[in-house]
Amino acid sequence: MTQKAGKSLKEKVALRNRLLKEALAELLGTFILIALGCSCVAQTVLSRGVLGGALTISVGFAMAVTLAIYVAGGVSGGHINPAVSFAMCLTGKMKWVKFPIYVLAQFLGAFLGAAVVFGINYDALIFYTDGNFTVGGANPTAHIFATYPQEYLSLTNGFADQMLSTAFLILGVFAIFDTDNLGVPKGLEPIAVGLLIILLTCSMGLNSGCAMNPARDLSPRLFTYLLGWGPEVFTAGNSWWWVPIAGPMVGAALGAATYMLFIGVHHFPPSPCQKTDALHEHELTHLEEGK
Amino acid sequence: MTQKAGKSLKEKVALRNRLLKEALAELLGTFILIALGCSCVAQTVLSRGVLGGALTISVGFAMAVTLAIYVAGGVSGGHINPAVSFAMCLTGKMKWVKFPIYVLAQFLGAFLGAAVVFGINYDALIFYTDGNFTVGGANPTAHIFATYPQEYLSLTNGFADQMLSTAFLILGVFAIFDTDNLGVPKGLEPIAVGLLIILLTCSMGLNSGCAMNPARDLSPRLFTYLLGWGPEVFTAGNSWWWVPIAGPMVGAALGAATYMLFIGVHHFPPSPCQKTDALHEHELTHLEEGK
Amino acid sequence: MTQKAGKSLKEKVALRNRLLKEALAELLGTFILIALGCSCVAQTVLSRGVLGGALTISVGFAMAVTLAIYVAGGVSGGHINPAVSFAMCLTGKMKWVKFPIYVLAQFLGAFLGAAVVFGINYDALIFYTDGNFTVGGANPTAHIFATYPQEYLSLTNGFADQMLSTAFLILGVFAIFDTDNLGVPKGLEPIAVGLLIILLTCSMGLNSGCAMNPARDLSPRLFTYLLGWGPEVFTAGNSWWWVPIAGPMVGAALGAATYMLFIGVHHFPPSPCQKTDALHEHELTHLEEGK
Amino acid sequence: MTQKAGKSLKEKVALRNRLLKEALAELLGTFILIALGCSCVAQTVLSRGVLGGALTISVGFAMAVTLAIYVAGGVSGGHINPAVSFAMCLTGKMKWVKFPIYVLAQFLGAFLGAAVVFGINYDALIFYTDGNFTVGGANPTAHIFATYPQEYLSLTNGFADQMLSTAFLILGVFAIFDTDNLGVPKGLEPIAVGLLIILLTCSMGLNSGCAMNPARDLSPRLFTYLLGWGPEVFTAGNSWWWVPIAGPMVGAALGAATYMLFIGVHHFPPSPCQKTDALHEHELTHLEEGK
Repeated sequence: MTQKAGKSLKEKVALRNRLLKEALAELLGTFILIALGCSCVAQTVLSRGVLGGALTISVGFAMAVTLAIYVAGGVSGGHINPAVSFAMCLTGKMKWVKFPIYVLAQFLGAFLGAAVVFGINYDALIFYTDGNFTVGGANPTAHIFATYPQEYLSLTNGFADQMLSTAFLILGVFAIFDTDNLGVPKGLEPIAVGLLIILLTCSMGLNSGCAMNPARDLSPRLFTYLLGWGPEVFTAGNSWWWVPIAGPMVGAALGAATYMLFIGVHHFPPSPCQKTDALHEHELTHLEEGK
Repeated sequence: MTQKAGKSLKEKVALRNRLLKEALAELLGTFILIALGCSCVAQTVLSRGVLGGALTISVGFAMAVTLAIYVAGGVSGGHINPAVSFAMCLTGKMKWVKFPIYVLAQFLGAFLGAAVVFGINYDALIFYTDGNFTVGGANPTAHIFATYPQEYLSLTNGFADQMLSTAFLILGVFAIFDTDNLGVPKGLEPIAVGLLIILLTCSMGLNSGCAMNPARDLSPRLFTYLLGWGPEVFTAGNSWWWVPIAGPMVGAALGAATYMLFIGVHHFPPSPCQKTDALHEHELTHLEEGK
Repeated sequence: MTQKAGKSLKEKVALRNRLLKEALAELLGTFILIALGCSCVAQTVLSRGVLGGALTISVGFAMAVTLAIYVAGGVSGGHINPAVSFAMCLTGKMKWVKFPIYVLAQFLGAFLGAAVVFGINYDALIFYTDGNFTVGGANPTAHIFATYPQEYLSLTNGFADQMLSTAFLILGVFAIFDTDNLGVPKGLEPIAVGLLIILLTCSMGLNSGCAMNPARDLSPRLFTYLLGWGPEVFTAGNSWWWVPIAGPMVGAALGAATYMLFIGVHHFPPSPCQKTDALHEHELTHLEEGK
Repeated sequence: MTQKAGKSLKEKVALRNRLLKEALAELLGTFILIALGCSCVAQTVLSRGVLGGALTISVGFAMAVTLAIYVAGGVSGGHINPAVSFAMCLTGKMKWVKFPIYVLAQFLGAFLGAAVVFGINYDALIFYTDGNFTVGGANPTAHIFATYPQEYLSLTNGFADQMLSTAFLILGVFAIFDTDNLGVPKGLEPIAVGLLIILLTCSMGLNSGCAMNPARDLSPRLFTYLLGWGPEVFTAGNSWWWVPIAGPMVGAALGAATYMLFIGVHHFPPSPCQKTDALHEHELTHLEEGK
């Protein structure tokens, strides 16, 4: 904003260009997330567990997030998740005007990613299902793309699951990018977020597969609806489909609020030193107090 | 410390506020540790090993520790373990007056974390146990929350196990945060501690599940006592419950002493040169050239 | 470039020496990749899954890439893959004149690496196969060295698989080394590339084992052809052998183009401020204070 | 060495003190390596694979190496392996006079580490073996402590295995600590070495368990000889015991020589810039050449 006041048109064009760039980055990032993340599920399901399992899905999906953030992060911040964008807007870290553009790009990217999962695994899908794409039955494949709840799961418990797992996700993301806290070294945040995803999928994956991301879940679900899995993808699990959309958005607000209340508002006014040396200064203080 | 001598009341208020902030951070950190760490055990147990195993519990619990330190570390140091706080006080890194506050926050956070594990997995627990919560039998679930010893384990061997595994934990934590030793880069200590937890759970998890943390064990045990598992959670394993409390406290002293004797007291007085490595010097040069 | 104009002969000699050094580094790097990466497959196959599985192969091969880049990276850039060298030339990051030298060194290194896999595992191979080296049958071993497609896989789907997986590889490598993007800290790029390989082998390994590298696939295949597995290594899978050569080269172009279009061309001109982050500024302050 | 010439006695005392400190650090480091590394094997064996497997042993042993280097590294370099100390002396990175002290400390530390493995797992060992400690048979436990070859393995192949795996280990260690190469950031070398150990145990663990370290193998073997496993620990595997001692020492020389020939001697005389920016300068050059 070093531009002069009279150049408002130029500013508008620059802003539109910038927003376009960010939308492209979000689109590519979410595309990578789904194309590679859901392919980890495909590899496990279609090899009947020979070439994958709970851990390769957990680690693979996490590294898909890491890669997506490395690719998109320098341009758009690498949200690749409407719930993350929502939390950023809620806490004033992103302008609300950008929110619909980001979310649209994320849903579009996720849809294209699902197409890659389908294309790359087309022969395997036909071989595994005999061309009969289903949500349930002997050779179900819909859960390669979207998440479905365990049979025992009530919608109440399911909503709490999606809300709380996303709250922990946002809590972790805020801590990782909070330079007034311990602070992950610059350029390593995507790996720290990946480790966070490993944690969440190992701990919160039981009930419904830990979507925590409306774009990650709805776009591939829509893709399967259109490509032959039929309306059951929306009716299954007592019409489960809306839970991984609504739950994460509420969870995003909860997670952001929790971090702000417990940690964020308590930061001391940052001095040049404190800003970058929070831990060690803290320990130094402890040492001094101990004398 | 830059405040003038006359402002003692203001100082007291500031100290109380600061201690409150630290307590909140410890509470949130230990809450995260249990809510996500014990959920890794829940995911493995309640899926009967389909969605998890020894490795997802090891890696998941470790990353729960990492996340908890990233969240709480910048405010309270991220002890999330009375044994760690004890070691810090013993070696003069924390004032003893803070110790009961830290420990209380840790026990409270762990209790609330256990409530989340219970709530998130409520439908799964009912489905798995038919509503019959037990320590042993066909579908035991108490070990999701607290640790129980193997049948062969004597209390003596068990105490040695908890004492030594915690001693290695403290030894590792001291090495990781010792800037006069090799030194984990600032901001990556929580990940190094996570790797340490992976190591300890892969090597010392056989006998009794590697609690190494009184708050991690007693609070969830108390929660199960109150929520329907009954008094067997305290009587099981020849009244095992006190071992993961006493063992870690003794181990903390042993680990701190070992590090001090073998490594800590031998550090050479650091020269200014030693503190600056080639990499940052290089970047310094760039900055100067940029002027 | 500081050399004077008259010293053209000296320059030529220096250039030739430099190219020789780079060729030696690429040779050693690709040698390491195959000697250790393919041995991960050998360990899993020859122990009949007792000492390895999908995850040890994924993580092991990834860490072989990481090690190879750490060994060769400072001299040659650590491409260890003709598709990577191709992408570098396409985007002007390497002179085309170097391309054949790099590729030759990579193929030679991979061939020597295959010899080590054979030698180290000689007794185990004889024990496992009774001396009967085959592509298929009861105790196949050719897939320890080169990749073979699943029976269901068409050449079209297979080509798409190799093309797209390599495109994602190049996309990731470009993001990881793009200092105008988020930026992996200097010296950690090899580990980030390793994580990328874990992701790709967990997500794209189903159809044909995720070669993504002509040297990694053809040289060990040629080795098995010469050492007793016979012509079936080339005829198997509907003459599959050329797909992991052609697919990756097309994919390299696709991946480089995608990154450039979506991310690369949109970078803002970097200001001096952007290049310096808070952390290093802080350390600068320390140094100045130390004067 | 800022001390004046006349203070030779003081210098000698200082040197002796320093060597004592280094010996203590090596002892503690190797103690940690065995106490925790071999306990990973114990956890897998004694739980009959329920609480561990190939991957927990690989990752656990690797992280034991990482921890040991973090603990000892700042004082002694953290060799924790006579083969590493040998390579350091061969290449002039350590004085030969220190070699016997280091090796003695390593063997002593490994012996004490084996005692901890025995003590911590005493009840489990008795329960698993009924008090009958054996190398082979129904419930073998000697391989918790030392390595034994597969039945098919000849001594020739076994020697090549130990020689080559250690050569790769040294090659990797030299690359990781070579600041004229890509360069692992300061303070992260122990983690990079850990990743290298994961690679080597996943790729070279088939034949005989990948000892690569005379102290890691001989001291625990001696411990089992004394504690009830009897002379079979030395006679088993066609008197295998000397191979993990001699092989690694030859391999250390081979690995050091290979790194020097292929990479080390080719480094350009380092300028202040090149030293810390090898990769990016290299790519810059590529870019310039490409114009």
